[in-house]
Amino acid sequence: QGILERLDAGEIVIGDGGFVFALEKRGYVKAGPWTPEATVEHPEAVRQLHREFLRAGSNVLQTFTFYASEDKLENRGNYVAEKISCQKVNEAACDIAREVANEGDALVAGGVSQTPSYLSCKDKAEVKAVFRKQLDVFMKKNVDFLIAEYFEHVEEAVWAVEVLKESGKPVAATMCIGPEGDMHGVPPGQCAVQLVKAGASIVGVNCHFDPDTCLKTMKLMKEGLQAAKLKAHLMSQPLAFHTPDCGKQGFIDLPEFPFALEPRIATRWDIQNYARKAYDLGIRYIGGCCGFEPYHVRAIAEELAPERGFLPEASEKHGSWGDGLSMHTKPWVRARARKEYWENLKPASGKPYCPSMSKPDGWGVTKGGKELMQQKEATSEQQLKELFQKQK
Amino acid sequence: QGILERLDAGEIVIGDGGFVFALEKRGYVKAGPWTPEATVEHPEAVRQLHREFLRAGSNVLQTFTFYASEDKLENRGNYVAEKISCQKVNEAACDIAREVANEGDALVAGGVSQTPSYLSCKDKAEVKAVFRKQLDVFMKKNVDFLIAEYFEHVEEAVWAVEVLKESGKPVAATMCIGPEGDMHGVPPGQCAVQLVKAGASIVGVNCHFDPDTCLKTMKLMKEGLQAAKLKAHLMSQPLAFHTPDCGKQGFIDLPEFPFALEPRIATRWDIQNYARKAYDLGIRYIGGCCGFEPYHVRAIAEELAPERGFLPEASEKHGSWGDGLSMHTKPWVRARARKEYWENLKPASGKPYCPSMSKPDGWGVTKGGKELMQQKEATSEQQLKELFQKQK
Amino acid sequence: QGILERLDAGEIVIGDGGFVFALEKRGYVKAGPWTPEATVEHPEAVRQLHREFLRAGSNVLQTFTFYASEDKLENRGNYVAEKISCQKVNEAACDIAREVANEGDALVAGGVSQTPSYLSCKDKAEVKAVFRKQLDVFMKKNVDFLIAEYFEHVEEAVWAVEVLKESGKPVAATMCIGPEGDMHGVPPGQCAVQLVKAGASIVGVNCHFDPDTCLKTMKLMKEGLQAAKLKAHLMSQPLAFHTPDCGKQGFIDLPEFPFALEPRIATRWDIQNYARKAYDLGIRYIGGCCGFEPYHVRAIAEELAPERGFLPEASEKHGSWGDGLSMHTKPWVRARARKEYWENLKPASGKPYCPSMSKPDGWGVTKGGKELMQQKEATSEQQLKELFQKQK
Amino acid sequence: QGILERLDAGEIVIGDGGFVFALEKRGYVKAGPWTPEATVEHPEAVRQLHREFLRAGSNVLQTFTFYASEDKLENRGNYVAEKISCQKVNEAACDIAREVANEGDALVAGGVSQTPSYLSCKDKAEVKAVFRKQLDVFMKKNVDFLIAEYFEHVEEAVWAVEVLKESGKPVAATMCIGPEGDMHGVPPGQCAVQLVKAGASIVGVNCHFDPDTCLKTMKLMKEGLQAAKLKAHLMSQPLAFHTPDCGKQGFIDLPEFPFALEPRIATRWDIQNYARKAYDLGIRYIGGCCGFEPYHVRAIAEELAPERGFLPEASEKHGSWGDGLSMHTKPWVRARARKEYWENLKPASGKPYCPSMSKPDGWGVTKGGKELMQQKEATSEQQLKELFQKQK
Repeated sequence: QGILERLDAGEIVIGDGGFVFALEKRGYVKAGPWTPEATVEHPEAVRQLHREFLRAGSNVLQTFTFYASEDKLENRGNYVAEKISCQKVNEAACDIAREVANEGDALVAGGVSQTPSYLSCKDKAEVKAVFRKQLDVFMKKNVDFLIAEYFEHVEEAVWAVEVLKESGKPVAATMCIGPEGDMHGVPPGQCAVQLVKAGASIVGVNCHFDPDTCLKTMKLMKEGLQAAKLKAHLMSQPLAFHTPDCGKQGFIDLPEFPFALEPRIATRWDIQNYARKAYDLGIRYIGGCCGFEPYHVRAIAEELAPERGFLPEASEKHGSWGDGLSMHTKPWVRARARKEYWENLKPASGKPYCPSMSKPDGWGVTKGGKELMQQKEATSEQQLKELFQKQK
Repeated sequence: QGILERLDAGEIVIGDGGFVFALEKRGYVKAGPWTPEATVEHPEAVRQLHREFLRAGSNVLQTFTFYASEDKLENRGNYVAEKISCQKVNEAACDIAREVANEGDALVAGGVSQTPSYLSCKDKAEVKAVFRKQLDVFMKKNVDFLIAEYFEHVEEAVWAVEVLKESGKPVAATMCIGPEGDMHGVPPGQCAVQLVKAGASIVGVNCHFDPDTCLKTMKLMKEGLQAAKLKAHLMSQPLAFHTPDCGKQGFIDLPEFPFALEPRIATRWDIQNYARKAYDLGIRYIGGCCGFEPYHVRAIAEELAPERGFLPEASEKHGSWGDGLSMHTKPWVRARARKEYWENLKPASGKPYCPSMSKPDGWGVTKGGKELMQQKEATSEQQLKELFQKQK
Repeated sequence: QGILERLDAGEIVIGDGGFVFALEKRGYVKAGPWTPEATVEHPEAVRQLHREFLRAGSNVLQTFTFYASEDKLENRGNYVAEKISCQKVNEAACDIAREVANEGDALVAGGVSQTPSYLSCKDKAEVKAVFRKQLDVFMKKNVDFLIAEYFEHVEEAVWAVEVLKESGKPVAATMCIGPEGDMHGVPPGQCAVQLVKAGASIVGVNCHFDPDTCLKTMKLMKEGLQAAKLKAHLMSQPLAFHTPDCGKQGFIDLPEFPFALEPRIATRWDIQNYARKAYDLGIRYIGGCCGFEPYHVRAIAEELAPERGFLPEASEKHGSWGDGLSMHTKPWVRARARKEYWENLKPASGKPYCPSMSKPDGWGVTKGGKELMQQKEATSEQQLKELFQKQK
Repeated sequence: QGILERLDAGEIVIGDGGFVFALEKRGYVKAGPWTPEATVEHPEAVRQLHREFLRAGSNVLQTFTFYASEDKLENRGNYVAEKISCQKVNEAACDIAREVANEGDALVAGGVSQTPSYLSCKDKAEVKAVFRKQLDVFMKKNVDFLIAEYFEHVEEAVWAVEVLKESGKPVAATMCIGPEGDMHGVPPGQCAVQLVKAGASIVGVNCHFDPDTCLKTMKLMKEGLQAAKLKAHLMSQPLAFHTPDCGKQGFIDLPEFPFALEPRIATRWDIQNYARKAYDLGIRYIGGCCGFEPYHVRAIAEELAPERGFLPEASEKHGSWGDGLSMHTKPWVRARARKEYWENLKPASGKPYCPSMSKPDGWGVTKGGKELMQQKEATSEQQLKELFQKQK
């Protein structure tokens, strides 16, 4: 059954987690460029992560094609582009996802994300051409549906949806925005409306903010759609990092990004709480983004097991609400094998010399990426290339 | 070259990280029992984790045989024992470790750890028989050397070393104790002396405490050996969790164990700091235990790259001290691409409603596991089995 | 010179601090009732506190008549009312304030605050009669001007202003509201407009929120007045407690109120920061409320000394920005004798087992006092009396 | 009845609080010099603070003669010494204390503290001469007993006790040390023994550390005396600041000293907890030092009211365990009127951008003041004078 059949039937669809962060920690993705050439270089590592998400309960495996547009691969990872073509990266991503999806009952979704072309003010046709190149691969490999994700500007997201719609396949679209809206100030409700009008059947948010903040944004999207009398399925894939202190541009601006986010990592109980709240808000496509590890996805599946009627495969290795502890030698550890314990625990950081919140960076600027690229202080693509050459 | 040849030559040997915690999050190990039947059930997952540690710089791959003694498998994971024999689990662990070790230049170490037999007061012969069963597999599979690790009582650790020494292979021994010593009150210095006298060529600590605390214990072990005029190589494999607030029995007693430790996870910079301090203290076998992911091991290898003269393979996907950020669009993120930034950052928890330290549990008791098993309130093996039957 | 002459001439007028909290800690006011019978019982203690504020730089001494309306004294402190009449409390307050004001160059302001009569839904005439009783004393004692302060409902504040205006003396009016507005939902801008239209020459906020939050509310008041093309002087007297976590009803609902607010107390440097920001926002009547001790008022006077051209008397015993430390024995303490040090310090709480923020109480209710009194679960005046009798 | 009669009879004697910190906040003492010339300049302020402590339950009023030795007044406060003689300061302090003591039933204790003469290595005779000058005033004014307090070096404390013993009056002696002992490394137990042998009838600690740390030190003193088979009454007067993070030299080295200690201030409940623990340890002279305000002393008196059989005068204005809140309008505030609530509350700091612990300063040095004065980097008395002249 396709994604829309499932959602139309009222099923809960569980997304997957964050590939770039997980594979960075495993040694296959470089923080900074964040490009997915690992699909070609180390397919076994990508395959294993897909498999873990599948076992954890994911109903959708997204192709690992984040930042795999040709302009991005050239820009950020040109050392790679010399050796591995954009096409190869995308093709390999599709093959791996499909191979693992077939181990279970999951759908494969081809994904595109925001492009340097848009940020450097290329025109609509040029930007669309970039998306179309990835779409060609997705069509050739016959993915089940398409996702336009991680867009800071609704204008670019709309262009992406328009391109993806050409395929005839169902399209989902998620933006990496918070309750304040996109980088040009378009509020979440209007973003949702524009995306649905452009052809998206599923809309929502991904990345940049923690579950609580994402659900606030989702509430605004839902209200926007209702006000416009538009129908669409809702989807959320937040960070698995607590970010109560971030500003309009999300966790990128936090001083801890990306190498000291550890103390902010959500527990499985935080994620169960998120899954429940997302469900209660009417969201039926529930997944995660950066920071979501397989056990976080399993937490979604376990929280919603009563509604769905089954547990994911990986729950064979997990006692609900900690009941695997019930056989522990120490009685006080056994006493932790219950829901109330974990629900009410306020976990300590073990870092008394650290604060609990940070002021986001940004040097007083709150511009979007597009404006930034136009500014003198922002490095142009050319400068970035020179920087990189020097670095080598 | 063998482990002793390397250490005797003054080489730095990098250990691996924590299998049970990493594989629990990936969906292959059950928290509570913590047993390694995944070697048989899901060899690809174990293989992939070994490979990630190898790429991150590990010079030793430990067989995934933690808690794989026959009595433990029966006790904690008897649902498994019905299907998978202790021998199969241990054999598969050896095969997988060797297969991955051959992808690089790593040694394979067969590992044993503390047993329920000791805790339930079986005698020396019985406990030794348990270790010997695992040793038989290690000999058959011809591992490169042996590690007795995760012992709370030096008496049991000595018995383990005595058995392992029968093999003629080099033996390392690490205890999961802090500066206060073992559960019977034997101070770290004396523990080290007893282990060396029993035949261990390498001694140290693993698990239960954070790097800072482990290094305090190591200092006491070193001093104990010096006072006794004994020579041995030093080894440390701490947690990758900050635990300034834990008591004598380590992180098990912290209220966050094991499902809410996230805010305590060490950053890669914390681990670089640990690697430097360990090196300065004269430790040359430097690795990690629970919480150590591949990127933590990479951090050890990167910190000590000047001394070793090379970087690990996974550093192809990692800019030293964050320099992968130097090409970021936002100038304030580019400004994070430097050592001083990450060294001085005090990362926020993002959890202002949570404290920074916890009081360890323990209901006022600070007994060792052995005493606990003897007490009325401690559940006997039989009771544990009944509990498990009921749970099923 | 009167208050309006000073403000009209562009002078900065420094208010005083919080009497009930300071005198509670000194042993003369009971937390709970918070009534000012100390003016009669222990005039020397009230006099000394006035004197300290005067020396610290206060240009206005408010009569210690908070909650000194007849209905409040009967309601909360009826054990007192049996012995000391409302008139006596108010008269003594005026005498003490005048006596100390004459030791310097300060004005005396007679103050009224919100009443139980309003909360228990007495009508306009009845409520006004309560204010008029206090006003009679203020007129007899010839205070210099009048302040209506600590109102949660703008309706009652307007009534108070109308009564006070009958005197012909200048009237200031401050509400204990945050950016969300009064307890009936009237936004700050509209509150300010209504108060000015009712006759207040000076408007602003006092109590319930920390300086940052109060300045946000003041900004809204200022914008409301500008939009309505009304002119008035601005006044702010916030808490000296940090309350980033409080809800609409302010610090009363925080779990720490009123006996565990210590970790939230502002430093003198926090207050200098507040004084500067208040000044920059155009506020010229700058003081404090609960938690403000004499040294906090001195901090306002020191921060604004460049603008005013003089230091307060108490600065004889205070080195600006810590320079009294420049003679310390220890060089690292001497190194603290500078502005940058104190401006940038992030002071630790010394309480690692405590969180940094709290969830406000309120049992899910966010009603104003008036609604609350009408509810079944709220204790009526009669019930309060019975409770009190029982307590005795 | 004298101090020894009371203690010998098993009475609890309640001390007073911290004059220099309280009067600094009130505007009468300068932080840095910390000298008590206010006894002459503003006797009404000193008198009022004495009175507040008396009402709060203090059985002893210490003359406000801290740092009132002639060498200190000259050194730190020479601008004062030009105008006000050491003798006058001490005489006025005695007069004020006696006047207020007569308002109740309190004893007057004359106090001396550590001297610059000792730190600058003057000999025993010279240092003793300094103490003798103050003692002459205490004898002339006929104080009830004598206290040698705030000594970092037991050697100087012993000299002080020897001088004070010449008077024939009872002598108490307290050191500002922690569990690590005095600045020359003499452990607390030995310090206590030396002081008793020198003639002190009462020994203990004051200042520099929080109640918990002080009680640890007291335990060591008690054990030292027991081991030496010496008898003495025990006395403790700790800070009212939480200092779990300070080093050997106490709160002086914390980065927050002295102008940002607010987040560390103890609540009244913290102090009740301290009073109970001190009592249980056998301490019968229980008071406070820097940071102790009158309400903290009242908390001691209220906690020990069951043992003593009476409440202090100031409890007329304080409901035990918050019961003054039982009449509050809001039901959730009324719910705070009980012991369990306040005992279990973990108060938030309201400062999420601040840490919970600090690293003490000290530039790596942990020398005592005496060594420091001898070092090149320490400013000599002469240099201090020059610094001061320049500052003027």
